[in-house]
Amino acid sequence: MDRSKNIDRLLKPRSVAVVGASDKPGALGSSMLANLERNGFDGAIYPVNPKRSEIGGRKCFAGIEDLPEGVDCAVLAIPRAGILPALKGLAERGVGAAVIFSAGFAEDGEEGLAEQREIAEIAARHGIVVEGPNCLGCVNHVDKVPLTFVETECRPPEGRGIAVVSQSGAMAAVLATMLQSRELGISYTVSTGNEAASGVEDYLEWLIDDAHTKIVAMIVEHFRKPQAFLQVVERLRAAGKEVVLLHPGRSSAARESAATHTGAMAGDYKVMRAKVEQAGVIMAETLEELADVSEIAVRSSALPEAGAAVLGESGAFKALTLDLSEELNLALAGLADADSPALRAALPEFVPVSNPLDITAMGLSQPRIYTETIAALLADKRVGAILVGLIQTDPTTCALKFPAVLEALEGGEGGKTVVFAGLDEGAEVPREWLARLRAAGIACFPSTERALRAIARLTHRRRPGGDTAIDPMPLAQLESGTIPEYRAKQVLASAGIAFPEGRFAASADEAVAAAAALGGRVAMKAQAAALGHKSDAGGVRLALEGEAAVREAWATMHEAVAGYDASIVLDGVLIEAMGRPGTEMIVGAKRDAEWGPVVLVGFGGVTAEVLGDVTLITPGQGAEAIAEAIHGLAQAPLLRGFRGSAPRDVAALARLVETVGKVMQGNDRILEIDLNPVMLYEEGKGLSVLDALMLVA
Amino acid sequence: MDRSKNIDRLLKPRSVAVVGASDKPGALGSSMLANLERNGFDGAIYPVNPKRSEIGGRKCFAGIEDLPEGVDCAVLAIPRAGILPALKGLAERGVGAAVIFSAGFAEDGEEGLAEQREIAEIAARHGIVVEGPNCLGCVNHVDKVPLTFVETECRPPEGRGIAVVSQSGAMAAVLATMLQSRELGISYTVSTGNEAASGVEDYLEWLIDDAHTKIVAMIVEHFRKPQAFLQVVERLRAAGKEVVLLHPGRSSAARESAATHTGAMAGDYKVMRAKVEQAGVIMAETLEELADVSEIAVRSSALPEAGAAVLGESGAFKALTLDLSEELNLALAGLADADSPALRAALPEFVPVSNPLDITAMGLSQPRIYTETIAALLADKRVGAILVGLIQTDPTTCALKFPAVLEALEGGEGGKTVVFAGLDEGAEVPREWLARLRAAGIACFPSTERALRAIARLTHRRRPGGDTAIDPMPLAQLESGTIPEYRAKQVLASAGIAFPEGRFAASADEAVAAAAALGGRVAMKAQAAALGHKSDAGGVRLALEGEAAVREAWATMHEAVAGYDASIVLDGVLIEAMGRPGTEMIVGAKRDAEWGPVVLVGFGGVTAEVLGDVTLITPGQGAEAIAEAIHGLAQAPLLRGFRGSAPRDVAALARLVETVGKVMQGNDRILEIDLNPVMLYEEGKGLSVLDALMLVA
Repeated sequence: MDRSKNIDRLLKPRSVAVVGASDKPGALGSSMLANLERNGFDGAIYPVNPKRSEIGGRKCFAGIEDLPEGVDCAVLAIPRAGILPALKGLAERGVGAAVIFSAGFAEDGEEGLAEQREIAEIAARHGIVVEGPNCLGCVNHVDKVPLTFVETECRPPEGRGIAVVSQSGAMAAVLATMLQSRELGISYTVSTGNEAASGVEDYLEWLIDDAHTKIVAMIVEHFRKPQAFLQVVERLRAAGKEVVLLHPGRSSAARESAATHTGAMAGDYKVMRAKVEQAGVIMAETLEELADVSEIAVRSSALPEAGAAVLGESGAFKALTLDLSEELNLALAGLADADSPALRAALPEFVPVSNPLDITAMGLSQPRIYTETIAALLADKRVGAILVGLIQTDPTTCALKFPAVLEALEGGEGGKTVVFAGLDEGAEVPREWLARLRAAGIACFPSTERALRAIARLTHRRRPGGDTAIDPMPLAQLESGTIPEYRAKQVLASAGIAFPEGRFAASADEAVAAAAALGGRVAMKAQAAALGHKSDAGGVRLALEGEAAVREAWATMHEAVAGYDASIVLDGVLIEAMGRPGTEMIVGAKRDAEWGPVVLVGFGGVTAEVLGDVTLITPGQGAEAIAEAIHGLAQAPLLRGFRGSAPRDVAALARLVETVGKVMQGNDRILEIDLNPVMLYEEGKGLSVLDALMLVA
Repeated sequence: MDRSKNIDRLLKPRSVAVVGASDKPGALGSSMLANLERNGFDGAIYPVNPKRSEIGGRKCFAGIEDLPEGVDCAVLAIPRAGILPALKGLAERGVGAAVIFSAGFAEDGEEGLAEQREIAEIAARHGIVVEGPNCLGCVNHVDKVPLTFVETECRPPEGRGIAVVSQSGAMAAVLATMLQSRELGISYTVSTGNEAASGVEDYLEWLIDDAHTKIVAMIVEHFRKPQAFLQVVERLRAAGKEVVLLHPGRSSAARESAATHTGAMAGDYKVMRAKVEQAGVIMAETLEELADVSEIAVRSSALPEAGAAVLGESGAFKALTLDLSEELNLALAGLADADSPALRAALPEFVPVSNPLDITAMGLSQPRIYTETIAALLADKRVGAILVGLIQTDPTTCALKFPAVLEALEGGEGGKTVVFAGLDEGAEVPREWLARLRAAGIACFPSTERALRAIARLTHRRRPGGDTAIDPMPLAQLESGTIPEYRAKQVLASAGIAFPEGRFAASADEAVAAAAALGGRVAMKAQAAALGHKSDAGGVRLALEGEAAVREAWATMHEAVAGYDASIVLDGVLIEAMGRPGTEMIVGAKRDAEWGPVVLVGFGGVTAEVLGDVTLITPGQGAEAIAEAIHGLAQAPLLRGFRGSAPRDVAALARLVETVGKVMQGNDRILEIDLNPVMLYEEGKGLSVLDALMLVA
């Protein structure tokens, strides 16, 4: 179906049927009708209620079968039991869209799930957009169409506003309240509930070409169509729109809770996060942050492309800002007397240029300092975002400071993120000043802490571009199941991954010959698809030298493996030159059933396992971005040359991760790759992948 | 001097001289006078200004020498140059206290520092309380005495309020604005500035017996008298008052910045934090948190002594709360159907008992659910703090929910921390509801995130009590300087710390005999006070067995050390039985020049050094509390039996830390103790301290 056209019938209906219309205060069907009337909906309204002939002066239809043909949208304000018959009836009358408020479907067990599937089937068969069930409906603020029972006053946004798209209806309403109280324009509010037949990604698609939306603020507990979501985000961003997402599930307790109450399986939160961040989605972690980030994004003419600068009036505030910036990993632009002539000229002699800039209380007697320092920061290419953090005190003090601040900001060219925040939350600030700041594209925050958190989120967002070229690498026909080390190494070597020199040996004689050919000390490792944990089974022997040692190891190893599991028949052994010790790393990859391939890289060994000192990389990133992520690991100082040891070859590790990502993209039968350990050597000396396993579908 | 009596003359003056009085709008001396008059100060006011005979109808004194004898407090609203002469003159007139606004003293170089010292001398000689310099003065809200030039309206607190004590004057003013906007009572606001002659600890001491103060909210950049501060906190807490502290300096950048602008040396932030937290101070990390924690503490009848419970109306909010609680390490009380009959009875059948409790939207139609669930939580001993997180929506919805919530909370017995927070910040909530909640001792928050953060801070505060008994352990007369391993081990063994069996050997023959007596493989370690890093100098040999090996090692070691540094003469070597490998830990102690002794315990080795996986313990804590702190280390899972390995003997490690703390307390000549590595063995198997160093004054 042409989804966009149908969503038009939901969000921009010319006719609305209210099934279960009522004039009983508090009834859903009554609140629904009142909303339409309060907001002056000028399309056709068709109340449906078998027990009434008119409601509030409107003719009431006894049944759905009495409705005119082709009503755009029907809102079902009736209990669950009546939903399926009503939807079938509406389908026969050629309705374009339906909103289902009732709960008790997929989240309520087998029977509800079956009914929800039937809703989906009807929707698909008849090309109906169904919103819900278990939702709070939608509001089109642009055209003033509220299809919800929550008391709503539609306020069309000036210019492009924020679209709220949330699975949770309660959270959609909460966010709308928050945004409206900050005088932010909302274009649409959509709550998708159980997403029987339409999900968040469908509404995002519709928003791509919408002229009234600049930012999409989302609350999602489980993405049902991850790939579709990633694709639509790409298209939204190409259309100049940003997506801000709040997604509970950082904690396992939250994931379990979400799975219970949404009836959906908990996905892998970390994989989700890696994928959506790579797509450029800006993550928020609390409702406050979601509103805060959305406010800055919608008000600003540009998002930060460089470090932040902070202007304040107190030494203690400067120190607090430095603490919080470090905690948030927010880079502050380096500004000093020597390299910042415009700032230097704007400041009294005894105030040094620094960032945060502490202009002291001098601004009270010389308000030009505000104007000139802010102007200098606006013109400074090193600065991507500016936080002006002032002590507001009282209306008299505001009247001294705000005009000077506004002089620098009003009528400017824009092109930079500027946020104003009071240090003294709750101070009496005449609304005029905040209104003028907002009109100039400046977000006004109640506290500098929140402003810094939001600026950090925006600064950390992934920019599109970079090396996203993919080099598909179709591998030779692979067997299915677990691929033992020697085969995995053959396969991965063909993709350009280097391993220690080694030979497969199917007999003791071959093993002796292989060891002799390699020379020096060798490792011997038992090989069989069924042998997942070689070491546990006595299947690994190291530092063997000479024929006798090799023959003894061959015999002992076969005995040990037989003793471990008599059903395992070894293919043979792998003889490899002993790798020299290095920094022990791991590289792994898996294909998430929902989100696709991700590559993991991090420190190896038990300590790293305890600390979880690993990071997820999405394939398609270039080696440089990967190296940056590796340098973000907790133990990364070990890689940079700690206590006199030589720096490690992080570039080689990044290339390995990049290649593994390409292999995962090149053949979607590969489910897992496990390179562990990877010995990482000194800069320029590369690395050595000591073991390799693969799982193939 | 009797400090408290003098601070009375500053904070509760019956007469105030304003040196530099003026009627020029904007002048400090004018704002100062206006403040006194606006607030109806009914004591004597003595303006001093040589150029005027009267100001605002008051007789003006030409000079300080004309003032009557024994004025309680003089406010110096004059430039820096006039301060010292004025203070001398005031001292001669027997003034009790002086407030110095001017800056340009210790923070401004040598000359200013010298003048500041002179201020201190005059204050000490004449028993004058001097507030400042470089401060914004003080406000006594209880008696309506504002000794500041910041426009102030004194509002006496109802009951016991919050005293604001801050080094930064700007931050004191900011915090006062924040608290007043939340309708919180402030008893006093004191800004101590450069603390030439009186510091935060003096004002805290004065507050111990003050009947109008319940909470002290502090902003401090550098404690100048740490020991006095710790003692006064103990007395404040014994008097039923809590101290909440914001202290920048988590980041090194903030510490440098604070040192620059306050003119004080940056102390050791981590040591400060360990000490003040152990004393029961509640730490805030942002201004928001400082106000939030203070609000809960001042409004609540009791602070949390058990886990928190959260009541909400949405599944998404439940998941978000679980995420944030995990991030904040906030324990939620375990509540379930089976063990919570009162909650079970209060809820509709389909809502399971859980924590967070998600009552869904049912409360809208059955508001009794709010009343009964909150009542059940109030009566539940497992619950220490309750967060009620509601969707406020609009006045109509508020009128449904708030009466039901208030019914449970008004007129209750108290005894529990209860916080109300709206999910939808900015929603229009009639003030009546918030006023009633506040009257019932409930803090009202604009967001649940902030409420949770503040509750976490309060829950994590240290409770007084526990094992704080000290067992002084005077050690035998110690030599000064670095104490080499064999001597350090002798000394520490006398304090009850066990080391591997070992013998000191002053010759090769003695070494051979010692090795033979110990039997098996031994370690040989070079001993000399000047040899700090034995390993680097070739001064450690391991796993020696038999006479020949010992003699060879003796010879080689002496050669190696001579080659490393020809000036070092070895006392001899230490021969020890080889310890078996265990989990490598470190235990250290140092005597901070300002804060006194602290003990550090954590994981050893290079990885741990990179990660800083250590924690600071203040001496006087019992082994159980220390064990708990050890279990908070990032790598602690390794100690609890990871992947099938046996759990480690954490109790033995905690006892070692406790003993080291006692040694530090028992002999204050010991500056440092360094036990590294400490091999920690399986539970019940104890540990082995392989190396020991001490530094003695």
